[in-house]
Amino acid sequence: MVVKVHGPTFTAATRRVLACLIEKGIDYDIVPLDLLNRAHKDPEYLKLQPFGVVPVIEDGDFTLYESRAILRYYAEKYKSEGTELLGKTVEERGVVEQWLEVEGQNYHPPIDTLIVHLKVFPKMGVPADMKLVEESEEKLAKVLDIYEERLSKSKYLAGDFFSLADLSHLPATEYLVNDIGKDYMIRDRKHVSAWWDDISSRPSWKKVLQL
Amino acid sequence: MVVKVHGPTFTAATRRVLACLIEKGIDYDIVPLDLLNRAHKDPEYLKLQPFGVVPVIEDGDFTLYESRAILRYYAEKYKSEGTELLGKTVEERGVVEQWLEVEGQNYHPPIDTLIVHLKVFPKMGVPADMKLVEESEEKLAKVLDIYEERLSKSKYLAGDFFSLADLSHLPATEYLVNDIGKDYMIRDRKHVSAWWDDISSRPSWKKVLQL
Repeated sequence: MVVKVHGPTFTAATRRVLACLIEKGIDYDIVPLDLLNRAHKDPEYLKLQPFGVVPVIEDGDFTLYESRAILRYYAEKYKSEGTELLGKTVEERGVVEQWLEVEGQNYHPPIDTLIVHLKVFPKMGVPADMKLVEESEEKLAKVLDIYEERLSKSKYLAGDFFSLADLSHLPATEYLVNDIGKDYMIRDRKHVSAWWDDISSRPSWKKVLQL
Repeated sequence: MVVKVHGPTFTAATRRVLACLIEKGIDYDIVPLDLLNRAHKDPEYLKLQPFGVVPVIEDGDFTLYESRAILRYYAEKYKSEGTELLGKTVEERGVVEQWLEVEGQNYHPPIDTLIVHLKVFPKMGVPADMKLVEESEEKLAKVLDIYEERLSKSKYLAGDFFSLADLSHLPATEYLVNDIGKDYMIRDRKHVSAWWDDISSRPSWKKVLQL
């Protein structure tokens, strides 16, 4: 069964899902959505994703949204195929879940604000709120200091194995490093920098960036 | 092994964890933390939870933080004990994960803002930002409209079974209904109201409120 992924390939959430499907060796078809023409608010789309955001997947007659839920679903459904992304024990999975939550709650939100104000707004001619930009950068710096400490003790976030916890960080970090001139936030931290070089050089991520 | 839960029993995140432990029949000891005296910023506590928030659990020499990660860990570790909270199939678990993410990303944040501005700030003599309160209520109303539609088709969020997805909504909804005078947001929606009556009358939740 080929998985249909509804969503443009430039959004962080869609990229997160695609990276997972590629790591697991799952076939997919991308169904592009024209966000500029508000295709994500179209009644047909809202039947699949009532919140009107991307992505949503269709796998036969099973549909699922929320990118991190989709990651977990495929990592569990195809546990023994492709890269093992949930750890080997229930404790390892617990730690994967912990860092996946940290990514969703603490890491992604300040980067999302930076992207909106430093990349999206300028394109639309809307002035950035520089106080909010500064606050978001401060929040992110504190989070990254904790990551630096963590990654000085283990190669990846959940331990010495690459997992969904790391994978989920790829899209936002890519924007941070290569799109909005904040690469120093990663590069000034030795262990975070080495971790980023490692995870961003995975063939799955390179393939996502080519889509 | 008795699970140590570090955190005061009035915070939403600690209550979420306690409700899960009680549903699964797991013994726990609560280690109170004096947030007013900033015990959560104490170096000893930060060794357990580097972000300085509650709760964190200690289970033998295994420690874990992020309340929704702790829920998943115990629901999976003791899958066949107490209430089944993750569904029976990988698809059911996928949908549980979807609504658990919706709770964490869309439902909890606006309620958290309402609690801070309508309950915490008044106690501290800090004026509430009423524009932010209004925006948060609007956001929450849109989310609740989607819940109303969903709950008109299935008894619980993930299907016809109570799961972590529902359980995770208990603490914030309790504050919304009983502490900040916004009960009409639940009561004005027939299916959401019936769902709240159902999940909030579970013995596990009544026990959490007595702690």
